[in-house]
Amino acid sequence: MRIARFSIDGNVAFGAVEGDQQDELVLDIIKGIPFTDFELSGTKVPVSKVRMLPPVLPNKVVAFGRNYAEHAKEMGNEVPDAPFAFFKPATSVIGPGDEIQYPSFSQEVHHEAELAVVIGRLCREVPRERVKDVIFGYTCANDVTARDVQRRERQWARAKGFDTSCPLGPWVETGLDLTAASDLTLQLTVNGEQRQLARTSEMVHSIEDLIVNISEAMTLLPGDVILTGTPAGVGPLNVGDEVAVTIEGIGTLTNKVVKRG
Amino acid sequence: MRIARFSIDGNVAFGAVEGDQQDELVLDIIKGIPFTDFELSGTKVPVSKVRMLPPVLPNKVVAFGRNYAEHAKEMGNEVPDAPFAFFKPATSVIGPGDEIQYPSFSQEVHHEAELAVVIGRLCREVPRERVKDVIFGYTCANDVTARDVQRRERQWARAKGFDTSCPLGPWVETGLDLTAASDLTLQLTVNGEQRQLARTSEMVHSIEDLIVNISEAMTLLPGDVILTGTPAGVGPLNVGDEVAVTIEGIGTLTNKVVKRG
Repeated sequence: MRIARFSIDGNVAFGAVEGDQQDELVLDIIKGIPFTDFELSGTKVPVSKVRMLPPVLPNKVVAFGRNYAEHAKEMGNEVPDAPFAFFKPATSVIGPGDEIQYPSFSQEVHHEAELAVVIGRLCREVPRERVKDVIFGYTCANDVTARDVQRRERQWARAKGFDTSCPLGPWVETGLDLTAASDLTLQLTVNGEQRQLARTSEMVHSIEDLIVNISEAMTLLPGDVILTGTPAGVGPLNVGDEVAVTIEGIGTLTNKVVKRG
Repeated sequence: MRIARFSIDGNVAFGAVEGDQQDELVLDIIKGIPFTDFELSGTKVPVSKVRMLPPVLPNKVVAFGRNYAEHAKEMGNEVPDAPFAFFKPATSVIGPGDEIQYPSFSQEVHHEAELAVVIGRLCREVPRERVKDVIFGYTCANDVTARDVQRRERQWARAKGFDTSCPLGPWVETGLDLTAASDLTLQLTVNGEQRQLARTSEMVHSIEDLIVNISEAMTLLPGDVILTGTPAGVGPLNVGDEVAVTIEGIGTLTNKVVKRG
């Protein structure tokens, strides 16, 4: 099931997405919240009549660095023996169709397409064999990065945490199992031109590895998001660009880049 | 005014702290929430009858690294030209009297006493002369750090973001102006023995600098917390230790270290 979050007439709701053609998608409004038992109401609204929102409002976004060997190489870095994580704050999250605001303190903003894992339940110290049970679903992410600031600053709070630097969406796909999610095509285009193309099977550390690693240290909450790293092909975004992350079996997350107002 | 957050009979409330002797403190329960207009109810409860909670529940905790020259030196690091920031997640925050759980993945956990700034209003791109207007008050913080993990991992999400690694409290002091807050004695003891002692005037980058720096990149929300760096004297914490951060004009934040259960 594809679960979207949206606003209509000033109210925020979740809905199950029906249909295949982008311009004919319909939302079946959900009663309750998706992380627990919920029902479909049967009340349907066309996607074209709502404003799509980030599919979750995470308490935290945990992102992993250098998790595709070819990307580590293109950045002149070694592949780390163990995963390492950083945070993107909730204030950086935007939804499908929202604008990426080019920040005033950077002259080199890059795209980074990533598979995002959405956590479904409160958990800590998750054993490898239970990882599948704590995953709610998957969505597309763009780990937008001020590359020049990242080079200058020892920790990446500003470089990867500025407002609008975490597009998520267009919805959470809950129908993929861990095996399927671990071998999907992931691609990113800028103005229709392909820039990144890889399979999630190329991750250095698997989805299980990442969730075991981070949950060893900290409690994960329903709606928390894990970004699993970006493959090779990262590059600049400019004002006016349209950037799209497409993941097989999930969908396409599209955002325009604008000057920060 | 000293504003505490506490629970009593299963309800969470804010209160203004009255009195000077630790065992005679009383809370005047606040009607409304402290970040907007609020009134004191006149209903009073002794601190000894409540469970004190972290004085705020931040959306994000932004922490600055190497902001005291002597601490940078003791770690073998240079003082950075510009501030650099990292995040501690909301799940790491605990209150006064709560237990610091020694994590299973580290053998070298350190204390780091810090002055914490609590943000009072939604703000972005705060000009230097407006910094004073976005500050709600000040509290004590301990930026508990898994030093061995920090050395191994390129980014510090696990090393500084594990559960219980961000004690805050005991309350927010709202009566200090920026000039006063920029020249306070800050000290930390372990089992009564002094380990860190400095003045906030020794910060490399001032409170204004830090808030200008981070708000240039991201929106700050009421209740967000800025940790301003730790002075020299950091060192190990062991299971059974009692660690106390005292800041002049604010109060003392005390926590015991226990084995993670």
